[in-house]
Amino acid sequence: MPLAARYGDPDAAAPLTNDVLAVQFAHRSVRRFGPRDVTPDELTTLIAAAQSAPTSSNLQPWSVIAVRDQERRRRLAALAGGQAFIAQAPLFLVWIADLGRAHRLAARSGTTVEATDYLETTLIGFIDTALAAQNAVVAARSLGLGSVFVGAIRNHPEQVAAELNLPPHAVAAFGLAVGEPDPSEPAGVKPRLPQAAVLHQETYDAVTADEHIEVYDERLTTYNTHYGLPGAWTDRVLSRLRGPDSLAGRHVLRSVLERLGLPSR
Amino acid sequence: MPLAARYGDPDAAAPLTNDVLAVQFAHRSVRRFGPRDVTPDELTTLIAAAQSAPTSSNLQPWSVIAVRDQERRRRLAALAGGQAFIAQAPLFLVWIADLGRAHRLAARSGTTVEATDYLETTLIGFIDTALAAQNAVVAARSLGLGSVFVGAIRNHPEQVAAELNLPPHAVAAFGLAVGEPDPSEPAGVKPRLPQAAVLHQETYDAVTADEHIEVYDERLTTYNTHYGLPGAWTDRVLSRLRGPDSLAGRHVLRSVLERLGLPSR
Repeated sequence: MPLAARYGDPDAAAPLTNDVLAVQFAHRSVRRFGPRDVTPDELTTLIAAAQSAPTSSNLQPWSVIAVRDQERRRRLAALAGGQAFIAQAPLFLVWIADLGRAHRLAARSGTTVEATDYLETTLIGFIDTALAAQNAVVAARSLGLGSVFVGAIRNHPEQVAAELNLPPHAVAAFGLAVGEPDPSEPAGVKPRLPQAAVLHQETYDAVTADEHIEVYDERLTTYNTHYGLPGAWTDRVLSRLRGPDSLAGRHVLRSVLERLGLPSR
Repeated sequence: MPLAARYGDPDAAAPLTNDVLAVQFAHRSVRRFGPRDVTPDELTTLIAAAQSAPTSSNLQPWSVIAVRDQERRRRLAALAGGQAFIAQAPLFLVWIADLGRAHRLAARSGTTVEATDYLETTLIGFIDTALAAQNAVVAARSLGLGSVFVGAIRNHPEQVAAELNLPPHAVAAFGLAVGEPDPSEPAGVKPRLPQAAVLHQETYDAVTADEHIEVYDERLTTYNTHYGLPGAWTDRVLSRLRGPDSLAGRHVLRSVLERLGLPSR
């Protein structure tokens, strides 16, 4: 199976393949959706796939909210950087890193779950939510649906929590717009770093890995130019991580999480 | 396709199925491995699948270290709660939330990436690492390989960083032991919460969702009893999250991350 698009390298090929890998390798983010709805059966299937992902100590520290209401999607789009596709997609899933359920279990048992106050447990919440959501992304594609993650749902976590009636100790980790891909969208499989830039043998070798970045900058520039996007990869990373002003308001996330009941100490 | 095992409910069935969903629904953690090695082609395939996962702003803020050396796996097992399967598996992948690459790009360009100092960016690192790793889990299973995540790699992050020669601004997010499943392992598909306990429509409804926990406690007790494991789900969650003493040393993760160059402010 060709991996030429995945690596922006005409010579790249996968040594092994099957139906699962074919779906994974062909992933691209979809930001323009056709008119058809996501059916209840499709939604049930996506969530069953998500629940099938591993979870630390079987804690299952996440929830997901299926938003179909047009007005609510418009309000969430406004809170998430004004990304119009959130209102355009028939289904917007908001994935919740949810330690609230454990708190409610504790309250019913007359005990406490003080471990939820620590950064470690916040990270478990986000990690396990991500594992689950990625299964939903792959499941969606296997059903002919497209999707795109929305990290900008963290731009205004308290307003999002109010909109979704979140309980204490819960936060929207990311959104996922889901729908039928509109084939008119000008987007392809985005090339990733050469595998040798991210995979290390036995120990981390920064010098050897980083030797592969120059060719990647060239490959991604070729891709971006084709789609009218600016810049080489290095420039985009440096711009995105320049400083607190490049975080779209999320530089205050730590104090916001504390107010939401995830003090992350 | 039956989802009876996934939900511990003889009546549960998937409304839709295909080869991808079948692999996802059948997931279980594998902690006992057969003798055969994971081939280089298999490793290449797992990492290509991982790189095909979405990543925020195409930052690709992760790396992965393939550990095959027996002595190194023994040392990592000792650092990660003494879990013997780490030394027993032919391949141990350590997934790195890696903001170090961006720092090196910045140094070469004579600039800085101060956004990496914030919790938001640490979270992006962990989330994107998790999305990638989950693709590798599903890819592994599609190739007939089993795997299990190892969160205990966060028990001693600084020692793990030293063992793996990690650069600054990088931390082992979790491990993943990979190998051929040994069919003699007494383990099955672990039941998850009823879907109605985690999926909300339009807004979060804790009362309705939590009504489904009692039946889940019964179902998981049935599963655990079959495999000689203790306790209902609620009891296990409360025990696992009791307090800082139940975090296996990870209650200090925030200060450890700061020393590793991920201050997460």
